[in-house]
Amino acid sequence: MNGGDLGLPVDVPSTALFTDQYELTMLQAALRGGTADRRSVFEVFTRRLPPGRRYGVVAGTGRVLDAVENFRFDPAVLAFLRERDIVDERTADWLADYRFRGSVWGYPEGEVYFPGSPILRVEGSFAECVLLETVVLSILNHDSAIAAAASRMSAAAGGRGLIEMGARRTHELAAVAASRAAYIGGFQSTSDLAAGFRYGIPTVGTSAHAFTLLHDTERDAFQAQVESLGRGTTLLVDTYDVAEAVRTAVEVAGTELGAVRIDSGDLLLVAHRVRQQLDELGAKDTRIVVTSDLDEYAIASLAAAPVDAYGVGTQLVTGSGHPTCSMVYKLVARAESADEGAPLVPVAKKSLGGKLSVGGRKWAARRLDAEGAAEAEVIGTGPVPPELADRQLLVELVRHGEVVGREPLDTARDRHTRARAALPMSALQLSRGEPVIATEYV
Amino acid sequence: MNGGDLGLPVDVPSTALFTDQYELTMLQAALRGGTADRRSVFEVFTRRLPPGRRYGVVAGTGRVLDAVENFRFDPAVLAFLRERDIVDERTADWLADYRFRGSVWGYPEGEVYFPGSPILRVEGSFAECVLLETVVLSILNHDSAIAAAASRMSAAAGGRGLIEMGARRTHELAAVAASRAAYIGGFQSTSDLAAGFRYGIPTVGTSAHAFTLLHDTERDAFQAQVESLGRGTTLLVDTYDVAEAVRTAVEVAGTELGAVRIDSGDLLLVAHRVRQQLDELGAKDTRIVVTSDLDEYAIASLAAAPVDAYGVGTQLVTGSGHPTCSMVYKLVARAESADEGAPLVPVAKKSLGGKLSVGGRKWAARRLDAEGAAEAEVIGTGPVPPELADRQLLVELVRHGEVVGREPLDTARDRHTRARAALPMSALQLSRGEPVIATEYV
Repeated sequence: MNGGDLGLPVDVPSTALFTDQYELTMLQAALRGGTADRRSVFEVFTRRLPPGRRYGVVAGTGRVLDAVENFRFDPAVLAFLRERDIVDERTADWLADYRFRGSVWGYPEGEVYFPGSPILRVEGSFAECVLLETVVLSILNHDSAIAAAASRMSAAAGGRGLIEMGARRTHELAAVAASRAAYIGGFQSTSDLAAGFRYGIPTVGTSAHAFTLLHDTERDAFQAQVESLGRGTTLLVDTYDVAEAVRTAVEVAGTELGAVRIDSGDLLLVAHRVRQQLDELGAKDTRIVVTSDLDEYAIASLAAAPVDAYGVGTQLVTGSGHPTCSMVYKLVARAESADEGAPLVPVAKKSLGGKLSVGGRKWAARRLDAEGAAEAEVIGTGPVPPELADRQLLVELVRHGEVVGREPLDTARDRHTRARAALPMSALQLSRGEPVIATEYV
Repeated sequence: MNGGDLGLPVDVPSTALFTDQYELTMLQAALRGGTADRRSVFEVFTRRLPPGRRYGVVAGTGRVLDAVENFRFDPAVLAFLRERDIVDERTADWLADYRFRGSVWGYPEGEVYFPGSPILRVEGSFAECVLLETVVLSILNHDSAIAAAASRMSAAAGGRGLIEMGARRTHELAAVAASRAAYIGGFQSTSDLAAGFRYGIPTVGTSAHAFTLLHDTERDAFQAQVESLGRGTTLLVDTYDVAEAVRTAVEVAGTELGAVRIDSGDLLLVAHRVRQQLDELGAKDTRIVVTSDLDEYAIASLAAAPVDAYGVGTQLVTGSGHPTCSMVYKLVARAESADEGAPLVPVAKKSLGGKLSVGGRKWAARRLDAEGAAEAEVIGTGPVPPELADRQLLVELVRHGEVVGREPLDTARDRHTRARAALPMSALQLSRGEPVIATEYV
């Protein structure tokens, strides 16, 4: 098994412990009580978007498929569960043979979503489905949060370059998944080598302030870099005095200098000055890359500045204020009994505090207006109205335990571009707003 | 090599790709330019705490030690770097033999920190130190953010139980590190089995709403759970009507029922009602566990409620509004030349926008007042004043590439309790404030 499939730059045998203990205790109680085999439907959805956000972006689906495939209990894991008395012998034996044999449908990766959208639907026995809750939610909640931020940033950047460089601001493996999600959301490259290794995302990077400080002079540093990386490299020009650095940079690399990077100061002002200076020095094709705690608002505010590319770190990998989505994994229907063919009954929690859920196995479709723009997210439990039949959103991902929905990352990235473009124009406003289309239940 | 050491429930061969590409291009340029062997000192510090926070908590140090030890370039990784032209042949050969042989000193894990605190100091050749930037920062920035949130929550909870249950709200491996950091910050247990497997943190969990919904009646569900897990289990009582569920729970489990869990509604009100009902039913020892988007403020607001334990998810694993710290890894001193014994020169970026750094290799000590309470974080580059000699904060972690600072997780957890207790009382106020002691440079 190639655990690279788990989003790691390494082999990993199993995802089975990315699980909350209560999933195993529920399994044990259901096995004993005779309800474990009741056919069940679980759905992933959010009750709301993060405050002010106009759409959500599905990301992580591909990683979910890998995680489901690799969800196996090996002897070391089973020994742990037995030693710690987390499950009894019967349950441990059941887990030893576990593999998911049910079906999964869901929104394809890169698609947009809205409150109530059934982003993922997992069907099978209660026992086999209940175990997947935590790992499915971990992946979708994290990756979709990053992709949503990335999408807003790429909308703000227009056609300019976007480099993901947030690895240092988040967990080392979350960073790899964040690069992947950022790419789906419209970023072009990453500084994170593990993301390049694992997902083939283009990697970039040249030098930090430390490299300049290592040398006796800035000129020495630039010379060493250009000798090693060529004139097309990007020189970092804000260690000491920017104007002097730009002059030195062009002296050292010539007018073929690839780019300069500015990592501090008033980027709007400095970018204008640096552009003028580069032009005056004849380095008209030398690009300007800016980095320094950028978010979608800062990117938008630089729209009129002569900036060629943005490097984004902290705010991207922390979801620009919303580091997680509020996706939940809920039982929405289950069979009346464990008998094969027993009819499904819709179920839902009904209690305090407005945490209401809509029971029943759902379909979803996006209704378009006369111009072909998205008009409503239509969700239902009955038959699909004929006019929406070819606008359905869920696709088959896993059939009888077999992954059938795997696709290249670029497919998800392209899908996101298209899905976003089909939303009403106001979707791209960065200001706080309501979901850009309404959710209708039929 | 047991990659469990990396915080994974799995074997992992290397941390070498948790690296930003520019570290390798700087290495290549320095090797070519003859500066790679200059003795260098890098320091990790923050310029500020998150807005309003009164202290920071160092966490992740133990994971950093594992990551440094496992930072090796294996053939698959080297092949990737060559194929993608990320480094030249000479650099790839150098990387093939890489292992860190320098020294690391730092604040021990669980210690508190303030703006400017030299949390970690890495010394060696430029080449060997520059490579560690990203993985060191990823770990410390993530883990310290979670530990800081956990510390505030544990202060708010007083002596009541705190259960980490945020795995579903963050990346599946960030979740494991988050459980570890939460434990250091004062949590007692986790729902995350991978955290139990890897770090021995006590795991807990019984059932979700899905288990109740799976059954024909709530009573059936409670009976199945009690038969499987015993009367000491925790029954979830808010799927339908809380009062009815509590009555059923005590009927099914008797007055020996371990606990009930409430996951929605006005927790203050509901907890009081449930306590009264349990007492009237004779279940005076049955505990009340509350969960439902808690943060330190919600925990504090429940101080007067009859709650025995809090389960905390989203707000914990996202750092309660501050999902990352702003730690940086900066070159602060380097040798005048690559000659052995060449004297160190302090270095620092001096440019736009207030991103000033203090150059030079630093020590740090915490000065106490007459009552033994912390009074100032004292940081210096010269000799340590004699009166501060035994209050120094940095401890040796790696000597000539050998990890010497590994310690059990409980040591870090106990250290945090002591370090926090030594701060002025206002440290524990949850309201927004300034760092509770000032940083003085001498």
